[in-house]
Amino acid sequence: MSHHDGKMILFLGDGMGGRDVPSLGGRTCLEAADTPCLDTVARLGASGMMYLAGPGVPVGSDTAHMTLVGYDPFTQYRGRGPFEARGVGLEVRPGDVAFRCNFSTLDDEGRITDRRAGHIKSGTAELAAALMERCKGGLDGVQVFFKASVEHRAALVLRGEGLDYRVTDVDPHDVGLAPAVCRPAPDVPDEARAAAQKTADLVNRFVEIAREVFGGHEVNRERREKGLPPANVALPRGAGEAVHLKPFAEIHDGLSGAMIVEVDLVRGLGLYAGMDVLDVDGATGGADTDEIAIARAVADNTGRYDVILCNIKAPDLGGHDSDARAKVRAIEKVDHAIGFLLDTVNWGSTTIMVGADHCTPVSAGDHTGDAVPVVFYGNGVRRDLVEVYCERTAASGGVGQLTGAQVVPLLRNFAGRVTKFGA
Amino acid sequence: MSHHDGKMILFLGDGMGGRDVPSLGGRTCLEAADTPCLDTVARLGASGMMYLAGPGVPVGSDTAHMTLVGYDPFTQYRGRGPFEARGVGLEVRPGDVAFRCNFSTLDDEGRITDRRAGHIKSGTAELAAALMERCKGGLDGVQVFFKASVEHRAALVLRGEGLDYRVTDVDPHDVGLAPAVCRPAPDVPDEARAAAQKTADLVNRFVEIAREVFGGHEVNRERREKGLPPANVALPRGAGEAVHLKPFAEIHDGLSGAMIVEVDLVRGLGLYAGMDVLDVDGATGGADTDEIAIARAVADNTGRYDVILCNIKAPDLGGHDSDARAKVRAIEKVDHAIGFLLDTVNWGSTTIMVGADHCTPVSAGDHTGDAVPVVFYGNGVRRDLVEVYCERTAASGGVGQLTGAQVVPLLRNFAGRVTKFGA
Repeated sequence: MSHHDGKMILFLGDGMGGRDVPSLGGRTCLEAADTPCLDTVARLGASGMMYLAGPGVPVGSDTAHMTLVGYDPFTQYRGRGPFEARGVGLEVRPGDVAFRCNFSTLDDEGRITDRRAGHIKSGTAELAAALMERCKGGLDGVQVFFKASVEHRAALVLRGEGLDYRVTDVDPHDVGLAPAVCRPAPDVPDEARAAAQKTADLVNRFVEIAREVFGGHEVNRERREKGLPPANVALPRGAGEAVHLKPFAEIHDGLSGAMIVEVDLVRGLGLYAGMDVLDVDGATGGADTDEIAIARAVADNTGRYDVILCNIKAPDLGGHDSDARAKVRAIEKVDHAIGFLLDTVNWGSTTIMVGADHCTPVSAGDHTGDAVPVVFYGNGVRRDLVEVYCERTAASGGVGQLTGAQVVPLLRNFAGRVTKFGA
Repeated sequence: MSHHDGKMILFLGDGMGGRDVPSLGGRTCLEAADTPCLDTVARLGASGMMYLAGPGVPVGSDTAHMTLVGYDPFTQYRGRGPFEARGVGLEVRPGDVAFRCNFSTLDDEGRITDRRAGHIKSGTAELAAALMERCKGGLDGVQVFFKASVEHRAALVLRGEGLDYRVTDVDPHDVGLAPAVCRPAPDVPDEARAAAQKTADLVNRFVEIAREVFGGHEVNRERREKGLPPANVALPRGAGEAVHLKPFAEIHDGLSGAMIVEVDLVRGLGLYAGMDVLDVDGATGGADTDEIAIARAVADNTGRYDVILCNIKAPDLGGHDSDARAKVRAIEKVDHAIGFLLDTVNWGSTTIMVGADHCTPVSAGDHTGDAVPVVFYGNGVRRDLVEVYCERTAASGGVGQLTGAQVVPLLRNFAGRVTKFGA
C-alpha cells in the first residue's frame, strides 16, 4: 500500500551526467565510479532521462534549479544578480537591478592584483557600512544597497525608476586588468538602451565611490600593516532584474519546501522562492565536503518538510576542471550519501529522485545540454527493468523522458500529494 | 576532448521511415535493407525517435524542412508557392501570392493531354518572356511575374493589394480534363473571401492570357511541326502567401547553413531561408541519383559551412510508389553515402544526425505522422546501447524523443556551438 501523504526528496549530484571519457576506456565518470548505492536505487526504482530545459539547452545552476522547483526560466529568468543578492541577505523587490560583487584588491596603478582580496575574513561589514553611509541619500534618485557576505562576497541592489539589467560586468574575471567600465550589454534592445546606460553610469559611480571609501578605511590600513591585500574596491557582475516569483508553497498547493545546497547562487534562489535554506556543518561546496553530514540533514528534515532539494556540488567541480578522477571520486561521495539515505529514511512514506541539474562532461569542461539520467525510488514508484544508474541504462527506464519542470509533479504523484484532474 | 567549434550535418533519407511490410516478412524497408554503415553510426552514436511536427502529424517536404531549419510551420507556413517561386529564381516579397506552374498541353477542345508538355526541353524562356510582355502593365493594378525553370516547371507571383492565397489549383492533376477554374478555397474565412475571389479571378485571367500568348507562339509552331506536344497553357497550383522568414544565420546566432537537396521545393525553402543551396552533378532526385557525389559534396563543404542539410530523395519515391524493393534499394544508397562520410569526415570536429523528414510507408503510399528513427554521431555525442539503425531499435536510444525543431539545438549542443543559459 503506498503512503498517501508522502515526503519527497530531489537529490542532485551537481553536473553529475557526462560523456564518454577516453581515459576511462570510453566510460562516463558515472560508469567508472563505484556506485553500489546508486545502482541499488536504479534496480529497485524507475529510471529516465531528463532534459532540464529542453534537448540541447545547457542550463546554468540558477536556471536548472528554477525549472526543478517550478519556475519557467525562459520567461522568469533575468540574470543571476537577484538570487545572489537574496543569498547575501539583501531585500530584493520586483524591478530592482541586483549584482553579485567581490571585494578585490587594486594596486597603485588601479590594476586588480587579487579578485578576492586575500579571501578577506573580517572587516567587510565595516567597509560595507561605510559605503552605505556615503550612498544613503541614493545616487541620482536611485536607492543603493550594498551588503557583505562570507569572505570576499557581497551584493549590490539598485532600486529606482528607469533602470535596466542588461549591462556588462565590472569584474573582468582576471587579474592584471583594471576594473572594466560598465556599459549597456550588446544584446540590449534599442528601447532599453537609455535605461541600460543610466544603470551603467550608476554602477561606474558606485565603483568610484567604493574605491574612495575603502581606500582610506581603517580596515584596509590595518590589512596593509599586517601585509594583507587591502579590500579597496567592490567589483559588480552578473546583473539581473528582480521579478516576482510565486513562493514554492503557492505553486505547489501548500507543500513546504527546503533546500540543502552548497552553491550560494542556488541558496539565494531557494530564499527567493520562499523555501527554507538549511545549513549543514561540514558542507564545504568542495571536494572535501562531508556528504554524510549532508545526507543526515536530509534524513533529519524529511519529517519537517514535504519537499527537500539537496545538491552536492563536487561532481560539477571535477567536470569544470576536466578532471575525470576528481569527478569519479565526487560521484562516489554522492553514492555514499545515497547509501546513508537508503539505510535511514522510511521509504514506505518517502519518494526520492536522484539525478543532476545538468551534465558537466570533463571533455567539455562546462555545462552541456545533454540528457541527464534520473531515477525515482521509494513510496509509490513502480520498479522498472533498469539495474544500473548511468547515462546509457537510464534511456530505457520506466519514467521515460522528462523535463525539469515535470519532476516535482511526478514526485507528487508517487507521494500521493496531488489531486485528481477530472472525475 | 570534444571540439568546441564543431561542424554539423543533418543527413536525411527522404521518407526513409516506414511500417511493417508483409512482403518483407513483416520487416520495415529499413530493416530489410543491407545497411552496415547506418548500423555503424547507430552502434557508435546515440539514437532516438523524432516526430517532426508532433505525433501523428504527416508533414510535407516543406513543413518538415521548415521545422528542421528553425521555423514553426504551424504559424509560418502559408502554402508551398513562395518556396517554389523562390526556387525558380523569382523574387518573392512578404504579402506576395505565389504559385508553382506547369507548362502543359491542351487539345483543340481545351482538355489537358500532357501535364508536362512532353517534358519540354527548350523554348520556355521565350514563352515566359512573351507572357511577361503582355502582363507588364499588371492586371487590375496587381503586378504579375512569371518565370520558366527546368523542363515544364515555372512559377507565378502576384504582387498587390487585397489578395489572398487561399485559392484552388488550376492544374487538375490529371489528363483528359480541362484546366480547373480557380476559386476561393473551401476553408477561406469569410473576411478573406473577397480577396480570395479577386485572386482567383486574376489567376483565371492569367491562364486565359497564357493560352492566347502561347497558342500562337513561334515556339509552339515549331513543336507542332516536329510532332511535339505544344506548351500552350500554364497551369498554376500550390498557392501560397509569402511571409517574412528570418534568415537561418539570424535564427542560429550567426551560424552559416547550406543545403544539398534534390527537391525543388526544399531548394526553394533553403534559398528563402537565406541558406546557400549547392548543386551536385549526378544528383538526379531519382532512383539513379549519384549518392557518392552527394556525400562528397557534403564532405567537401563541411569546412565552409557550420550546418549542412542534405536530403536524398530516392527512398520517398519507393514509398509513394508502394514499391518496397525500390525503397530498400534507395535506403541502401543512403547507406553508401553514409559510408563515404564515415571514411571521409573528421568526426573529432563534426557531428551528424542521420534521419528522415517523415515516414513514407509503402503500405500508405504517402507521408505519415509516425516517428522516424534518428541517430547522432561524432563530436560530443555520448554513445548509447543501440546497435542497429531502424524504427524499432531507435526507440530505446539515448537521445530519446525529439521534435524536428529540437534537432539543430541538440546538434549545436554536441558541437559546442551554444551559449550557456544562466550562470
